[in-house]
Amino acid sequence: MTVESTFARWRDRIESQLDASLPSPEQAPKRLHQAMRYAVLGGGKRMRPLLVYASGQIFGADEHALDAPAMAVELIHAYSLVHDDLPAMDDDALRRGRPTTHIAFDEATAILAGDALQTRAFGLLADAALPALLRVHCLQALTHASGAAGMCGGQALDIDATGHAQPLADLQHMHALKTGALIRAAVRMGALCGDAPPADLLQLDDFANALGLAFQVRDDILDVEASSEQLGKTAGKDQAQAKSTFPALLGMDGAKAELAALSERMHDSLAGYDERADALRALGRLAVERNH
Amino acid sequence: MTVESTFARWRDRIESQLDASLPSPEQAPKRLHQAMRYAVLGGGKRMRPLLVYASGQIFGADEHALDAPAMAVELIHAYSLVHDDLPAMDDDALRRGRPTTHIAFDEATAILAGDALQTRAFGLLADAALPALLRVHCLQALTHASGAAGMCGGQALDIDATGHAQPLADLQHMHALKTGALIRAAVRMGALCGDAPPADLLQLDDFANALGLAFQVRDDILDVEASSEQLGKTAGKDQAQAKSTFPALLGMDGAKAELAALSERMHDSLAGYDERADALRALGRLAVERNH
Repeated sequence: MTVESTFARWRDRIESQLDASLPSPEQAPKRLHQAMRYAVLGGGKRMRPLLVYASGQIFGADEHALDAPAMAVELIHAYSLVHDDLPAMDDDALRRGRPTTHIAFDEATAILAGDALQTRAFGLLADAALPALLRVHCLQALTHASGAAGMCGGQALDIDATGHAQPLADLQHMHALKTGALIRAAVRMGALCGDAPPADLLQLDDFANALGLAFQVRDDILDVEASSEQLGKTAGKDQAQAKSTFPALLGMDGAKAELAALSERMHDSLAGYDERADALRALGRLAVERNH
Repeated sequence: MTVESTFARWRDRIESQLDASLPSPEQAPKRLHQAMRYAVLGGGKRMRPLLVYASGQIFGADEHALDAPAMAVELIHAYSLVHDDLPAMDDDALRRGRPTTHIAFDEATAILAGDALQTRAFGLLADAALPALLRVHCLQALTHASGAAGMCGGQALDIDATGHAQPLADLQHMHALKTGALIRAAVRMGALCGDAPPADLLQLDDFANALGLAFQVRDDILDVEASSEQLGKTAGKDQAQAKSTFPALLGMDGAKAELAALSERMHDSLAGYDERADALRALGRLAVERNH
């Protein structure tokens, strides 16, 4: 079985799991339920769920055990996009080639749908058919990654920095929280479900940190080089919003060199694992090579 | 020790616990941290934490064990107020006699602070010094109470109903989700921490359901009869927004009769407990008799 067919299988798996885990669009409050489903089921690369499955595979975790963490991290990601796109935040009308949730519905519904998706993420972990201590460990990883010390904090740093130049270290720190923390949590939860020893958790943290940063460097490059149609979201927004980016700070060549260095760091951090880590290796490559 | 002095002690306890559990206002991202603290530490009756302590006391739960659930339910309540007050939602400028969070800060910060407070609520439970299974049970109670099937769902039903009359059963269902679910979770988490048997959990659910409804009936009455100064928030908003209320549906006398009936139901549901339930009984009376 190729890595690509494994990813396709995992993507099918997470789609049907998410579909079954979100409230019915036919049941009241319908508009809220429909907005929650719209925000989650509208495509997306499902990178974070794939990271959970790929990381768990290294340690022989049962795929059934990985479903709840995979869904939970995707729901946190989805809720953050809904709120980030709001007029008071990034004010974006297009996401994944479709109107954003507050455009397709309305602002109040988008705020509430985001809130309820966050709750559902943690509820899924609390209800998962996993040992209680494992559920707690996953909840710790995901709450730490998504709150003020993680994703929300990174978003706040991003807002604070908009409109003026940021030193490279600050930019890296902001991204380590804004996107990195959730990627790290995805990789960690997969490993936790496979009962990975502490040393492996740290090793995988290193991989995830490099991946998170690589993902963002590639994002910044694509924002300059790709079209809105390719991206499925508005291109050129960083420059329009005067945001610090890796190409702006390092030049385009420097940003591409940074990407290559991160790629090598990902490779090195998985050097000690056998072919069961190939899926995780492939996800690292995808982050570096993707065109949207 | 009188019930009043017990409440004063519990209020001091929860204030210092909350203060210590929220991120430092001196640490980046400062504005986010300051907004989170502003939203939580600005007073409030702390009814939900008091319910946790009072319910736990019936079953001899250790007060230390109750701190995390007490904080968690208050953080959920606080985040919901921040988001409910946003311009796209209730558009309220005044709360507890102070500017609302998006007025004191800005909309983006208020959205993020609400998000991070929700995360912190579940993170506190995941990190609590309690047996893993008890943490999971509290997390289940609180996630079920606050998501699409609870508080967020109730808020969505409330929005759907704004501008047209609602039958009494729909109004009661909306409030059972919007405010009732969180009150039920508070009482339930306290009992869980005291290792209460399932029959007691159901008995206390009945008390909490009556309390939640009584709280809302009293709220509707106060919205008509009290001034903004007394309430610390804008009075008369229900009528201005053409919302269905108990006085509107039942008349003021009918609403007061309903309140008396709920008061009796609360009394009956605690009839089987000894004086250790006196604090919970007193909280029931407070909900019925409060003037703000």
